[in-house]
Amino acid sequence: MNRQIPFLRSPIVLAPIAGPGTPELTAAVADAGAFAFLASPYSAPDAIRRDVERIRELTDKPFGINLFVESELQQIEDDVLHQADARLDTYRDELGIAHHERPARPPAHYREQIEAVLEARPQAFSFTFGIPDAGTIAALKEAGIYTIGTATSVEEARALEEAGIDAVCAQGAEAGGHRGSFLNDGANVLIGTLALVPQVVDAVTIPVIAAGGIGDGRGVAAVLALGATAAQLGTAFLLAPEAGTSPAYRAALIRASARDTVITKAFSGKAARGIANRVTQELSDESLRAPYPYQNALTRDIRNAAAKQDRAEYLSLWAGQASALAREERAAQIVRRLLIEAREASVQAATALETIPITQG
Amino acid sequence: MNRQIPFLRSPIVLAPIAGPGTPELTAAVADAGAFAFLASPYSAPDAIRRDVERIRELTDKPFGINLFVESELQQIEDDVLHQADARLDTYRDELGIAHHERPARPPAHYREQIEAVLEARPQAFSFTFGIPDAGTIAALKEAGIYTIGTATSVEEARALEEAGIDAVCAQGAEAGGHRGSFLNDGANVLIGTLALVPQVVDAVTIPVIAAGGIGDGRGVAAVLALGATAAQLGTAFLLAPEAGTSPAYRAALIRASARDTVITKAFSGKAARGIANRVTQELSDESLRAPYPYQNALTRDIRNAAAKQDRAEYLSLWAGQASALAREERAAQIVRRLLIEAREASVQAATALETIPITQG
Repeated sequence: MNRQIPFLRSPIVLAPIAGPGTPELTAAVADAGAFAFLASPYSAPDAIRRDVERIRELTDKPFGINLFVESELQQIEDDVLHQADARLDTYRDELGIAHHERPARPPAHYREQIEAVLEARPQAFSFTFGIPDAGTIAALKEAGIYTIGTATSVEEARALEEAGIDAVCAQGAEAGGHRGSFLNDGANVLIGTLALVPQVVDAVTIPVIAAGGIGDGRGVAAVLALGATAAQLGTAFLLAPEAGTSPAYRAALIRASARDTVITKAFSGKAARGIANRVTQELSDESLRAPYPYQNALTRDIRNAAAKQDRAEYLSLWAGQASALAREERAAQIVRRLLIEAREASVQAATALETIPITQG
Repeated sequence: MNRQIPFLRSPIVLAPIAGPGTPELTAAVADAGAFAFLASPYSAPDAIRRDVERIRELTDKPFGINLFVESELQQIEDDVLHQADARLDTYRDELGIAHHERPARPPAHYREQIEAVLEARPQAFSFTFGIPDAGTIAALKEAGIYTIGTATSVEEARALEEAGIDAVCAQGAEAGGHRGSFLNDGANVLIGTLALVPQVVDAVTIPVIAAGGIGDGRGVAAVLALGATAAQLGTAFLLAPEAGTSPAYRAALIRASARDTVITKAFSGKAARGIANRVTQELSDESLRAPYPYQNALTRDIRNAAAKQDRAEYLSLWAGQASALAREERAAQIVRRLLIEAREASVQAATALETIPITQG
């Protein structure tokens, strides 16, 4: 079985990072010899077009675009939405921003986002929270776009292969940001990368990209030993100058230990890993939040204002469990370091194992 | 810094497996060239002596003993204990075993267990749930016994090194059985092995043994790439004929997928990972249980009866997230396969990385 991903020049992939991701970061990582995604789940179709144009001004290397797959929109009572929105007014008062007469609602532009991707023809399209419908998959393939779905369990990986997706990103519980889960609740099924990757490799025949908890080149070498074709890293790039990580977010990342992240639905209504703060603590109870994607729309003004005012306690501080390994280096230097470290780590493991006597069974 | 563990003949360690672990399994794994623990946390001092004698009848290879460190016993109100015990009477009725007029209480034999270990002089002593007091550590060293403490976070690893422990077992969230946590609640701080191991390796200078989610040789190669000196596996050996795994437990292991395990305090009051069943579901609420170690004493008769009656729904089905990779093979064959797979996996990773061009930074 062929587990090659034809356009990869190295086994390093920049994860789609909604929020701090920028066209500049995507272009810098692509230019340095890794494959890089741009996360566009919150972008209007026109913004996707502009971002793609910007990447292409900065690099001639291939790159990918990532979206959230739209699931059937859960209907929601007006008063549930009003109540969840009212719960956030304390934060708005503290940040000095306006209350809303009508709660913000999520935009309905998924089809137009897909159209923008089809027009842009990136090398790859990756997605989370589900599987696009058969027509969309056919249109992506028709446009020559390589498809990568996100799985947090063996069952999700199998579903992706059955739908004809080209490769699977196996996302372990260590990963920062949103969990891509779609058959299980991402807050309940939390399989670590070390356990998940080999089981996914055994369950499917398509290439597997490993994600979650890979903080440096040792992690890259480790997931290649597990059978992955490549390692996808997000948090490792958050301190690069090319990332749009806000100063408060950078400071929180530098301070955090591995035990400081939590799985939270406080910001979006969907499970995501980030550094614990006031919002993750205060909105941990389901009754205080609207479901996804409503909660995400409700908290947007707060997150935007908090970033501007440098207030980490209101920010979604997405980070994986290896965030302490992230370094303040230029993106190209991070890619270079990851490859050097990975090579050293893999040689070290191979050397340790080659001299062990293996007894007859 | 020297990360060698002098007595290891290969980078494979049989985890202490309280319950299904047997002197026969420990001896078979030791004989096959790996280092093997016997888990004795629930054993009376005389049982430890007998088990050690039995291992030494079966093999002349070194082995280790593992205990739970006794923490200060939380005082408990009689009616809390009676209430938690009464909650279990439904299960006793269904299993046809007697109710208790006085709830069973945990034995107070930790000092005698330590004495038995000191007398037995195993090559290594490993422990969880804390750090033995300075006098105990000094006595173990005096007896020439190598000490290994269990850490589930970077902070716990540092505390172990500061106490003068010889090596640390970095236990990721994927691990089956009890979490060794002692500075944090093991149910709340759940760091995956892939993220934990390199951060522990960076934080301490003593050797690091990686545990959690290592299901086959690919996992062994992966944790060596992360900087671990050895890989500790427990679940991978549960289907060996030398293990005391009950038929109902074996059947549950063979059926389980990675998403079927949960972190539960239902059986012992302390966080442990096992296959979800009726007891983990029904006793998930803290108010229905006594704290550790009381709950463990309360549920003992139920677990024993359930094992005899082949009733998996009442058993503590400890299993890690890589349980689906376990195979029904003799222990020696498992050790041999792990080494062959690990060697192949490490060469595969090194080969994939050696030809990648590294650009100038």
